[in-house]
Order: sequence, then C-alpha cells, then structure tokens
Amino acid sequence: MEANHRPKLEDVAAAAGVSKTTVSRVLNHRGYLSEKTIAKVQKAMQELDYRPNIIARQLYKQRTDLVGMIFPTVDNPFFSQLEAEMERQLYRNGYKVLIGNSQNDPAKEENYLQQLLTHQVDGLIVGTQNRGLIGYQHANLPVVAIDQVVGKNIPVVSSDNYQGGLLATQRLLDDGCRHIIHTNGPLGLDTPTQKRREAYEHLMTKNNLPAITYHLDFNISTIDKERVFRRIFEEPPEVDGIFAANDTDASTIINLASEYGKRIPEDLKIVGYDGSNVTRLLLPGLTTIQQPIDEMADLAVQLLQARINGQNVKSVVLPVTIWNGKTA
Amino acid sequence: MEANHRPKLEDVAAAAGVSKTTVSRVLNHRGYLSEKTIAKVQKAMQELDYRPNIIARQLYKQRTDLVGMIFPTVDNPFFSQLEAEMERQLYRNGYKVLIGNSQNDPAKEENYLQQLLTHQVDGLIVGTQNRGLIGYQHANLPVVAIDQVVGKNIPVVSSDNYQGGLLATQRLLDDGCRHIIHTNGPLGLDTPTQKRREAYEHLMTKNNLPAITYHLDFNISTIDKERVFRRIFEEPPEVDGIFAANDTDASTIINLASEYGKRIPEDLKIVGYDGSNVTRLLLPGLTTIQQPIDEMADLAVQLLQARINGQNVKSVVLPVTIWNGKTA
Repeated sequence: MEANHRPKLEDVAAAAGVSKTTVSRVLNHRGYLSEKTIAKVQKAMQELDYRPNIIARQLYKQRTDLVGMIFPTVDNPFFSQLEAEMERQLYRNGYKVLIGNSQNDPAKEENYLQQLLTHQVDGLIVGTQNRGLIGYQHANLPVVAIDQVVGKNIPVVSSDNYQGGLLATQRLLDDGCRHIIHTNGPLGLDTPTQKRREAYEHLMTKNNLPAITYHLDFNISTIDKERVFRRIFEEPPEVDGIFAANDTDASTIINLASEYGKRIPEDLKIVGYDGSNVTRLLLPGLTTIQQPIDEMADLAVQLLQARINGQNVKSVVLPVTIWNGKTA
Repeated sequence: MEANHRPKLEDVAAAAGVSKTTVSRVLNHRGYLSEKTIAKVQKAMQELDYRPNIIARQLYKQRTDLVGMIFPTVDNPFFSQLEAEMERQLYRNGYKVLIGNSQNDPAKEENYLQQLLTHQVDGLIVGTQNRGLIGYQHANLPVVAIDQVVGKNIPVVSSDNYQGGLLATQRLLDDGCRHIIHTNGPLGLDTPTQKRREAYEHLMTKNNLPAITYHLDFNISTIDKERVFRRIFEEPPEVDGIFAANDTDASTIINLASEYGKRIPEDLKIVGYDGSNVTRLLLPGLTTIQQPIDEMADLAVQLLQARINGQNVKSVVLPVTIWNGKTA
C-alpha cells in the first residue's frame, strides 16, 4: 500500500473533466451547478476516495467542533470512567475530543495546552493537578475544570470532598477505630483533595484523637508507594483504621495488611475513595466514598457548552455517598 | 469573561505598527527582518495572547502530527492501559492524539473514522471489534490495528490468543477440573478472541471433555451479564472450572460464586484474561492470562511511525504469560 498520498482537489477536477472552481462549488454548495455536473463531481470524489480538507474549510468557520481534555492519566479507574463519560456526552453533542494526559508533569501539561490552543479547540476540560499554568486564564477560551481550581474565572465541577472526608472518618470512628491514618497527595499543592484531609483532621481533633496523614507524591512508583504504606504497619501507633486517598491505594494497603497478619475488618478497617464502576466490580467488598463520576462528567460537558455559547456559568459541587462494603 | 474572541493576525499588526505581511514573515521565519521588528511583533503577540492558527499553517505542510485512535472504550482496564501507554509513546514522538470511543457501535465508529480522516490525521490506530468498515482499506492512510484483523493490508499487533487459550485451559485441567466453561464474545464476529475459544475446544476435545462456551454480546448490561452467568451455576453440569473472557467477567463470576455457596478455589477454579495493572492491583489473587499490554502499545506506535514514513511493516504476535494467583 502506498503511504499517505491523498487525492487532491485537482485530481477530482481532472477525473470529472471540470475546473477546480466547479469542484470547489460542489463542495461548498455555492453557485449554480447542474444536477449532472454535481453527479459527475461526486462520482469522481467517490472513485478517488477524495475527502474534502476540513482544515481548509475551518478557516472560514468559527468553530472546529473539537474539545480538548487535559487529565493526569486515563489509566486509573476514576479518570477513565470520567473521560469515557465526557467523551460519550461530547460526541452526542457533535464534538470530537482531543485528549492529553499530563502524567502530572507540568511541562507535558503546558505542551499539551499549547497544542490544543493552536489546534483551535472550541473549549477545554481540565482535571490536572499541577499549577502555575496561567495560560488557562490568559487564553480567551471556554474552560471548565473538574475537581481543580484552575483560575478565578474558570468554573469547577467537583464532588464534595469535605463531606467525603467527614463520611469516611465518621464511619471509622463509629466502627470504634481510635488510631486512624489518612493517606493523601503532596501537601504543597492546594488541591481539593486536601479538603478531605481537613475534614479528617477536624473530626479527629473533635474526638481528641491524633490526626496522622501520610502524604504521597503523585508520580511515586508502585514499589515506593508500598514502601511508604509499610510504615503504617511498622511504626507506632498500632493502626486500626485507614481512610485512603483512593481505591487503588486502599487495595494496596489491604494486600499489605495480610502480610502483617492483620485481618480486615476485624483488626483493621479501611475506607477507600472514588467508587468507580471498575473498582466496584473488581473489589465490591471495599467500603468507599463514591463520587458521582458520571454526573460530574455530564455536568462538565453541559457547563462547557454553555461557556462556548457565551453564557456565564457557576461552579457546582455534587454530594458524595458511602458504598457499604465489608472493610469498614 | 468574553467568550471565544481570538485575536487575529491584523490585531497583532496594528498593535506592533507593522504590516500583516511582516507579522506573517515573523511567524514563518521568512524574508529579511530586523531584530527590532521581530521583537516588536513578538511583544505584540504576547500582549494580545495571539496564537498562530495552526490550521492555516497545516495547509502548507504535509503532516498534522495528529494520530487518531478508535477503540471500543477507555473505561476498561485493558483498553485504558493500552491507550495510556500509546498516548505516552506518541507524545514522546511528537504526536498528539485524537481519540474516538465507539462503544462497539458501528455507526459511531464510522462517524469517528470519517471525522478523523477529515481532520487529516497522519495515521490511525484501531482496536474496535466491529466490521464492514471498508473505509479503513479505501483510505490512503497509514493504519495499524491492535488485536483485530481490519483489512488485508493493515498490520496487526496482537498477543497470542491461541496460546492464551491453551495456557488457561491447561491450568484448569492440571488442577483436576473436568467441567470447564468458557465465556467469550459473540460467535458471529471473526475476532481474534475466538482463537482463545478454539484453543479451549481443542484441549477439551483432546481430553474427551465437553466444551461449553457462553457467548455474550459486547454491549450487554451488567445486569444482563449477571443473568447469563447465573446460568453457569444453575444449569448442569456442575461446573468446577471457568476460563473467563476477561478479568472483569472473572470478577463478576467470583462475586456470584459465593452466592451459590461455591468456595474458590476449593469448589470452583477460575482463570481470567488480560492481566492489566489495575486488575493486578485490585484483584491480585486472580489467576489470569497476562497480555503484554505496554509492549503491544509500544509496538503499535513503532509500526505506525514506520507506516507514516512509507515503510512496509508486518503483523506481530507477542507471547502471553500466566499470572499465578489463588483462583486456579
């Protein structure tokens, strides 16, 4: 197969025996053309498998019908469900999606952002955790953020992280846990997940119990993560409850617990976070805080469309629920 | 915030006090320009947050540096790991990715395909399970398929499905299972996963055992899937081994087994398929056939680049391994 030779407008004109202007008129539905001429040109296009260059056409049009998405990764049950649902909704509304996964790398995120802007996306949905990308604010582009405060004029769709922190911690307290550890992301970043920690600290303090949070970097390897989590079992106090940053962390801790002879939930109770479809399917026994992932995705798409249409929109916080598994 | 007004070339020219031609020269690094003029134009571009219209520029260029991907869904541990890894590799090689998730809907797949072609992607990586899209063959476009025979000139990257079927079935036979059921996709489609079934049937027949395959539609709901799987426990023969189509199906069956009072692995042994990172993390006890997902992704990107550069490439089949969990 010959690589990459695309038939051009002149090839169609030659095959149909008409001028390039005539082909162009057929393509753009402009000017007077006989049925016969139209049929001739369309037949030539079909035979040559000619596809009009949408790039050229977009020059005359304000919209590209492309939406950009920048997220940390698609390889995570929370983000993959979120991205899949947004893509589904965007497609339903006539948009195609350009995705960029930043892997929490600010340089890669910036690069993707620039690329998406130069590709003239109609709008952007962002869910990355890095900061300092003031480009989001400078660009005259409709942007919606998910679960991240990106800039002061950018609406955010999130679920109630503080409520989630309260629900998780209260469940462990109600179960009789007194030595509860919380895992979270890096402390330096002002991410909404820190609200879960604040809720945890608030309840622990209210109950005169020490609040201990393990902060983990985003890009830490699985092996290093396990090393950190081992400290939970090896260092005092003897832990009896864990409020994990997400379901995959909860699963890693559950797997480690058996190594240390801890029975779940008898010796150690665990509450995860996210409650994606995949987690609920693979690990239905995990008690976890369930974010309304599909609703967040649908709402983000609605808000972006409103922004594209020039409407002002406000940030929205959706409630979370607890999934009652067997680990707490 | 004002919606969607993008500064134009003439705005930059006006702000810099130069002609449009001069701005265009600065953008395209063409013609003689003084350092002072360049600085003036660049300053104006920065202040206006002007971004050159890449769409217009691509008209003069053969490549868009865009690669399209069409897959059934991103919301599945196998595909999300595969797509994430391909995106990582493509980014490393200077490409951005346009994705379309077909949800196994031929109309949606066709629509995405047309869109990607009109967006002038440099190449396409496809992993969808529907057929009849002869467009893949007609388009003069570099295409690589993953695990799907798409057309006779299109190279396929796959893992050894027949070997996987042998490994899974042999493990269950070695464990002493005699009533082994296999789950798979719809029989009508000539997908490579049918090779797993053929391997299963081959080994069962060789051992004088009946081969029973449950065929499930792709878009079946979770509830309907469970209904089908219940028949495994409710209909004779009394099953003692299951070779599941994928890890999420294996997990669903494991969850059902306890309802029917079946202990795993004592009463029932199960082997899954895929062995993605997420599955191994959330369900490490599952014995499963592990596809080399990252290697498949890396290879698909390599082959596509070779095709884009006009080289001929051949299909590749990678070996699979068995992950030794506790379910078989």
